[in-house]
Amino acid sequence: MEKEKIIKLLADVKAKRISVNDAFEKLRHLPYEDLGFAKIDHHRLMRTGLPEVVFCQGKTLEQVITIFKSLSKKNKTVLLTRADEKIFKNIRKINRKVIYNPLARTISLEAKRAEKKGLVAVVCAGTADIPVAEEAAVTASVFGSRVEKVYDVGVAGIHRLLDCFDRIAASRCIIVIAGMDGVLPSVIGGLSRCPIIAVPTSVGYGANFNGIAPLLTMLNSCAPNVSVVNINNGFGAGYIASIINRMST
Amino acid sequence: MEKEKIIKLLADVKAKRISVNDAFEKLRHLPYEDLGFAKIDHHRLMRTGLPEVVFCQGKTLEQVITIFKSLSKKNKTVLLTRADEKIFKNIRKINRKVIYNPLARTISLEAKRAEKKGLVAVVCAGTADIPVAEEAAVTASVFGSRVEKVYDVGVAGIHRLLDCFDRIAASRCIIVIAGMDGVLPSVIGGLSRCPIIAVPTSVGYGANFNGIAPLLTMLNSCAPNVSVVNINNGFGAGYIASIINRMST
Amino acid sequence: MEKEKIIKLLADVKAKRISVNDAFEKLRHLPYEDLGFAKIDHHRLMRTGLPEVVFCQGKTLEQVITIFKSLSKKNKTVLLTRADEKIFKNIRKINRKVIYNPLARTISLEAKRAEKKGLVAVVCAGTADIPVAEEAAVTASVFGSRVEKVYDVGVAGIHRLLDCFDRIAASRCIIVIAGMDGVLPSVIGGLSRCPIIAVPTSVGYGANFNGIAPLLTMLNSCAPNVSVVNINNGFGAGYIASIINRMST
Amino acid sequence: MEKEKIIKLLADVKAKRISVNDAFEKLRHLPYEDLGFAKIDHHRLMRTGLPEVVFCQGKTLEQVITIFKSLSKKNKTVLLTRADEKIFKNIRKINRKVIYNPLARTISLEAKRAEKKGLVAVVCAGTADIPVAEEAAVTASVFGSRVEKVYDVGVAGIHRLLDCFDRIAASRCIIVIAGMDGVLPSVIGGLSRCPIIAVPTSVGYGANFNGIAPLLTMLNSCAPNVSVVNINNGFGAGYIASIINRMST
Amino acid sequence: MEKEKIIKLLADVKAKRISVNDAFEKLRHLPYEDLGFAKIDHHRLMRTGLPEVVFCQGKTLEQVITIFKSLSKKNKTVLLTRADEKIFKNIRKINRKVIYNPLARTISLEAKRAEKKGLVAVVCAGTADIPVAEEAAVTASVFGSRVEKVYDVGVAGIHRLLDCFDRIAASRCIIVIAGMDGVLPSVIGGLSRCPIIAVPTSVGYGANFNGIAPLLTMLNSCAPNVSVVNINNGFGAGYIASIINRMST
Amino acid sequence: MEKEKIIKLLADVKAKRISVNDAFEKLRHLPYEDLGFAKIDHHRLMRTGLPEVVFCQGKTLEQVITIFKSLSKKNKTVLLTRADEKIFKNIRKINRKVIYNPLARTISLEAKRAEKKGLVAVVCAGTADIPVAEEAAVTASVFGSRVEKVYDVGVAGIHRLLDCFDRIAASRCIIVIAGMDGVLPSVIGGLSRCPIIAVPTSVGYGANFNGIAPLLTMLNSCAPNVSVVNINNGFGAGYIASIINRMST
Amino acid sequence: MEKEKIIKLLADVKAKRISVNDAFEKLRHLPYEDLGFAKIDHHRLMRTGLPEVVFCQGKTLEQVITIFKSLSKKNKTVLLTRADEKIFKNIRKINRKVIYNPLARTISLEAKRAEKKGLVAVVCAGTADIPVAEEAAVTASVFGSRVEKVYDVGVAGIHRLLDCFDRIAASRCIIVIAGMDGVLPSVIGGLSRCPIIAVPTSVGYGANFNGIAPLLTMLNSCAPNVSVVNINNGFGAGYIASIINRMST
Amino acid sequence: MEKEKIIKLLADVKAKRISVNDAFEKLRHLPYEDLGFAKIDHHRLMRTGLPEVVFCQGKTLEQVITIFKSLSKKNKTVLLTRADEKIFKNIRKINRKVIYNPLARTISLEAKRAEKKGLVAVVCAGTADIPVAEEAAVTASVFGSRVEKVYDVGVAGIHRLLDCFDRIAASRCIIVIAGMDGVLPSVIGGLSRCPIIAVPTSVGYGANFNGIAPLLTMLNSCAPNVSVVNINNGFGAGYIASIINRMST
Repeated sequence: MEKEKIIKLLADVKAKRISVNDAFEKLRHLPYEDLGFAKIDHHRLMRTGLPEVVFCQGKTLEQVITIFKSLSKKNKTVLLTRADEKIFKNIRKINRKVIYNPLARTISLEAKRAEKKGLVAVVCAGTADIPVAEEAAVTASVFGSRVEKVYDVGVAGIHRLLDCFDRIAASRCIIVIAGMDGVLPSVIGGLSRCPIIAVPTSVGYGANFNGIAPLLTMLNSCAPNVSVVNINNGFGAGYIASIINRMST
Repeated sequence: MEKEKIIKLLADVKAKRISVNDAFEKLRHLPYEDLGFAKIDHHRLMRTGLPEVVFCQGKTLEQVITIFKSLSKKNKTVLLTRADEKIFKNIRKINRKVIYNPLARTISLEAKRAEKKGLVAVVCAGTADIPVAEEAAVTASVFGSRVEKVYDVGVAGIHRLLDCFDRIAASRCIIVIAGMDGVLPSVIGGLSRCPIIAVPTSVGYGANFNGIAPLLTMLNSCAPNVSVVNINNGFGAGYIASIINRMST
Repeated sequence: MEKEKIIKLLADVKAKRISVNDAFEKLRHLPYEDLGFAKIDHHRLMRTGLPEVVFCQGKTLEQVITIFKSLSKKNKTVLLTRADEKIFKNIRKINRKVIYNPLARTISLEAKRAEKKGLVAVVCAGTADIPVAEEAAVTASVFGSRVEKVYDVGVAGIHRLLDCFDRIAASRCIIVIAGMDGVLPSVIGGLSRCPIIAVPTSVGYGANFNGIAPLLTMLNSCAPNVSVVNINNGFGAGYIASIINRMST
Repeated sequence: MEKEKIIKLLADVKAKRISVNDAFEKLRHLPYEDLGFAKIDHHRLMRTGLPEVVFCQGKTLEQVITIFKSLSKKNKTVLLTRADEKIFKNIRKINRKVIYNPLARTISLEAKRAEKKGLVAVVCAGTADIPVAEEAAVTASVFGSRVEKVYDVGVAGIHRLLDCFDRIAASRCIIVIAGMDGVLPSVIGGLSRCPIIAVPTSVGYGANFNGIAPLLTMLNSCAPNVSVVNINNGFGAGYIASIINRMST
Repeated sequence: MEKEKIIKLLADVKAKRISVNDAFEKLRHLPYEDLGFAKIDHHRLMRTGLPEVVFCQGKTLEQVITIFKSLSKKNKTVLLTRADEKIFKNIRKINRKVIYNPLARTISLEAKRAEKKGLVAVVCAGTADIPVAEEAAVTASVFGSRVEKVYDVGVAGIHRLLDCFDRIAASRCIIVIAGMDGVLPSVIGGLSRCPIIAVPTSVGYGANFNGIAPLLTMLNSCAPNVSVVNINNGFGAGYIASIINRMST
Repeated sequence: MEKEKIIKLLADVKAKRISVNDAFEKLRHLPYEDLGFAKIDHHRLMRTGLPEVVFCQGKTLEQVITIFKSLSKKNKTVLLTRADEKIFKNIRKINRKVIYNPLARTISLEAKRAEKKGLVAVVCAGTADIPVAEEAAVTASVFGSRVEKVYDVGVAGIHRLLDCFDRIAASRCIIVIAGMDGVLPSVIGGLSRCPIIAVPTSVGYGANFNGIAPLLTMLNSCAPNVSVVNINNGFGAGYIASIINRMST
Repeated sequence: MEKEKIIKLLADVKAKRISVNDAFEKLRHLPYEDLGFAKIDHHRLMRTGLPEVVFCQGKTLEQVITIFKSLSKKNKTVLLTRADEKIFKNIRKINRKVIYNPLARTISLEAKRAEKKGLVAVVCAGTADIPVAEEAAVTASVFGSRVEKVYDVGVAGIHRLLDCFDRIAASRCIIVIAGMDGVLPSVIGGLSRCPIIAVPTSVGYGANFNGIAPLLTMLNSCAPNVSVVNINNGFGAGYIASIINRMST
Repeated sequence: MEKEKIIKLLADVKAKRISVNDAFEKLRHLPYEDLGFAKIDHHRLMRTGLPEVVFCQGKTLEQVITIFKSLSKKNKTVLLTRADEKIFKNIRKINRKVIYNPLARTISLEAKRAEKKGLVAVVCAGTADIPVAEEAAVTASVFGSRVEKVYDVGVAGIHRLLDCFDRIAASRCIIVIAGMDGVLPSVIGGLSRCPIIAVPTSVGYGANFNGIAPLLTMLNSCAPNVSVVNINNGFGAGYIASIINRMST
């Protein structure tokens, strides 16, 4: 998996700088911390360049707290998503510096002066899509990107979109979020040269089927620069946009 | 069902202008002709203002021929849809005046000088959507509408659509046909004040699911003037556009 | 997009009646008002002939109030849909003239003496479909149509439908609303010459799948004058019926 | 499973009229004949009152022939469904009396003077539904029912249906077959007092989804006397109608 | 629709026993009572032999009460389904004789000495299917059938089913209710000669998809005497079983 | 069904060791106890080697209690699944020895010194999958297997899985539980030689569709040793793993 | 991944019995052979105890031949599935000993005197399911299991199944294959104590949906010893049954 | 849409360097060429930095030829996808320099010495996925990326993947293509720091549902750096990977 490390380790063994058993232990034990119900992947920062993120939904409060403690000991930047206010109140007791975004439902801890670089645009079609947009924006920002937000520019009034277009023209990646018919990524994709990360939302009713309609619209987009993440997955979009943005900075 | 006729008939019976049995027979036998395998609804012209149309798919050649003969005896205008070349060759032997549109797969018979009125625009997103668009255009034309066709203006290059917009601005009804992501009706709907009839097509692949993707997009359209017909149903769209167009002429 | 306006503007620039920068600003800033979370499309009235409508579902109370204030300043007619009683109580504090229809869940503000014209029929199959029917009726009325309501005439007792048929025979557009098996639009479509806007509802259980069954029934209707809107989309049906109705008045 | 037989057998054993081993063999071996690839259920006639029917689809020609030979030895009445002409030609070599219905795709062998009793109506909506209707009609007839066929009476021209209604009013069971929107069973169900067996067909296109649309329509029928069989299952409908018809003769 | 009545009426008109206008009024007004939100089909008893039934779900308490009053004035037998306890408490104030079955969620009013005839078996696979089974049993009983209930005989322990089989062998119709895998109707169908009405229930979890799994199982049943009603539709099954049962009594 | 028993019984009858009626009664009444709403299959232990298990969901508290009483009288080992705390509190009043696992939602009663044999591994991908994993683990343990639990080893950090692999290498059957993308069984399957029982969970959101996504992933697994049970069906997996584990002990 | 091997290798490196670079090469290159378009996993036999199997569908003839050559050089037992006659003719040119089963569409090469052990039963519901059953039977046999085949015992005539039951009672694993309603695994599962591997087939029509119906039936089976593989996946079932069978031999 | 251009044009008008009418014409006519059935977007290169690509499927041979001629006149690089051999033979007559990749079904025309930059890895799970992989590789290469191909490294033998990992570790974007269970992107995503473009393929059978299974797997991937394109959309993946790759070169 990580050629250089294995070769280095084998060399150390050969040179008897490390015993066989110790080497094997190293191979196995370095990367994570076992909390029983969860195995914290401290190694992820090294491997992927970004720290592990905690998806709170489906975890008990106690589990979230324990995981946060473990992560915040070894990382300057920590992000919790799908977090409600109750989790925030408990996490704040542990670390006063965490910031809660109630719309995005994120709790974030950041190194003080982390400068934001490049440009990621976060565009959404309707007012009801804002929570997903905020999750994307917070994620992109926490991972180091400068973020420009453009909300409520659905194509029913396409001049609103065209008017805002110069604000997003310099983006290195555009996150486009839409529920209902999900047509916004196709329109923006046709007007842009950078990659578009499309996020369908479950906003809508009836034949929207909780986001299936915009998901399919986006997967079938005629604009070739559109790729898609899961319904309501603002975090994923923010994450991917960040790593794309970082590549050219 | 048809109050005036029933009252008139009852009055005739009362005045002994017609016997009871004859009256009942009239009530039952006027409207259609029974071909055994099919019951031709000659009454439709009176009831709906437009003659019956023959959907050829799923009928044998013999059935189509028999139905055409029955219809063409009593109607100046006859339309056959989903007709292949073989059907055309056989129908032409019966009536030399029929016209075949191989793209639309329609066979039509029209009264000579039927003037076309009003304006119905037929807009499609891609080249592969043209067969459905032609079916819609032929239908609208056969039923008396002037038709303006604008093809291959999908939103991936939105300037192409905007450029053509003045050609369709005067329409009383716009038929918008799209496969793939099906976003065109939403964009046109947002720019127009007349009713939009959206037709999803089965053009696409993968998560298009033979037209489900654009169907859902259109049903969820943010533009409130969009209503939808079945996948590939160019005929239905042309028919509805015609009756809307006719209302204001 | 709007040829005449652009040409006019270009002419003004040429004649130096307006500066280049001002012209560009005009092009961009006229159409809407930016509330941050929402961009109010005041331009819609001009473009489509009907004012923007507020879909309350998924918006916070504060957002709805702010949008209403913005709209009611510039429009005599305002419509809010999917509005609950709490929203109504707050909106009434701003403008005493608003009317709440609790069945339809609509809040409407109308210019006093707006005369209703033409005729739109709103027909529904069952008692449980009435909320959607009322939304359609309110919408059609607010946008200027005279409305005739015929409720609970599902085909299980088809004589009920036939009896009411003369009340709707003069309609310029018929909205037909049905859940369960959704067969009513096909039956009414076969008996009518005007366009039918079919609205499937989520009324039913089991293999109704929250409205998928009637949606499919309607999309596959044998009656060629039937087009379909989203499940429970009474607003859309009322809107489209209004613009069709208006065309011939 | 068959109390009387088991008790009788046990009594025979007790009375030593039969040995234990013979009794067990009887219990096991009476009912069917093992052809290796198929186990012919000769016992079915006794158990259900109707002979086993051969569904040819998915069987090789050789398998069908072998099964037919086995069945025709022990039964006067044999029915093969989903049979093509090639199968017919081969079966006819074995027994000259078999009759082929190419529309229904059935091969039937009947005892000569089997009188048909009661009345089963077979009604279909469109010309393209006739193959399924014929399969139902042949099945009902082979199993002893008098059959009345009424074809092409879809609701788009509801007067055609009403006109034919007296022909089916005396039925003990009505089979209603429809593709497209599948609304016919609801309409007929509302007008009838006998059980309706609804058969969806795969006739249609687009959002018909090969019969899912009419299947759902029928399952959600507002008429309470409608039950449903599989898409295109004319045989099943004819079979059930027969046993209902037989109950009251 | 009802030939004899129309001919009779026409004869009356001819004989001047009735005026034309009165005749027309008769044609239209006899069959139902218009409550505004509902149109009570008093004519149904004549037409179908069974009174109208009130499906309470989706109706307001006031609507149910008004409908009940209207029906109970003209019918000795009234059935309300999907009724909760609150509805019952209110209906009982109007008529002390109504009976509530809380498992079946039915409210029924019956003529005193209505003798139950024939035999309908109601069989269910699991304990959790009992509410649907009870709805079926109450319906069949209210409409005049003797009912035999056999519960919790799913095929996981097939001897339980076989043991009870003699209790249901004399049935003229068997209602088989199952959730989960829905296999019970196939097994009972293979062992019986009478019609089987299969009712899938939403009992189960995961890939049961709220009853889709047993619905599909039943539609694909290898036993040819199985027809199917909607998921959880105990009422429909009881109704159909009753009319089949009545045919042979 | 059970040849030896029937032959033995027939022999007893023949030898007049038992009367015919008694024999028939035996055949019918031995296997279960009829509680009215449920038929307890005491015979299951003999037939399948494992006692009946009570699936509490969908049963009333009273029903669960009655069933538990019946089972616990005749079995040393009893398992209740999908049981909430309220059920536990009531069951404990009947038998103090029952154990409640609130994560697994199981109530179990075990013979004291039941030694656990062999090895079943229970592996899950995320913290939110633990409830299903615990249900599987409890079931496997109650039915006699030694269980090794490995939690939170999803492939996003594959080294965590590889590290734990030696703990599960000796398993005779591995239960792999995953929601989200459901990829864990494929990875573990490729690395193992024993059978894998894959359990999809409803953990996830959006296009997870309550477990459909991991269900499909697992059904399509490239690893040939993977078979699948229903979404969230920890019990089924534990049961099957137990009988496989038992085979080789 | 394979602890012992890694530790051994590290020890060798430490003891200088092998150079670091050689060790790393060993770690990487041992397991497979790279054919460019395919990477043959020769290591699989060691890792899983069974050789790699070639799924021919979707591979070109040339690819299959090349893979076969590579595999047959290092393995005595080779299995190709989904192979048509054309592939067979070409493979036979390479190795005369291969055996083709045209029903199963398998090509197999076996070491001469491989004794078959234990017992795997392969049961199918209908004649049309035999190809899948044969694929399962060939696979189980090639991998060393004694196989008992029981075909055409669907539950429509349940006595046929009961009669054959003693032939499969001694099985260590039962493969149950069914299309249509897919009920057979539930019935057999309830009667057996060993694991059941259920294989849905695409045999059927209409609401069978190419195997979705029996797939869902099996996933929801009430019998707890049933696990499921993909539609038509006879190979997978035979593979799993073999490894279960092998465990107890 | 393009602020600078509009301002520049307005300035030109103001300065009378261009007439009003000419300016308007410029705004409208620059961007594309109208072929009647298609509107070639020559402007795309300027707007998005990449030339328009021709999706041949659904277009007639004549249409493809006409479009190719139009494009090749104004572009040095042209790409045609989903092209069969017949199209290639015809295109080659027009321009000898086009290259056909029969696996990828692409026809490409490239400027001679276009240097390939950066690194895009194209990884696929199985041999049958190669056509989609080749389409992705050709696209990425034509648009200027250096490409590394790694085929047949599905997780069933995960060591094959790990072995190849160093070849793709330096990629700026990894395209991962998989059918069947679609797990490969999750595994590679967890091991990488660059963006992953996941492409589901329709390779598989049964519950694969023509690519739905891997599509859902990928949309639900636990690895946060995975975004997804349509089933079999190798072109889209290659396009997006190229623009990401280009950003950092």
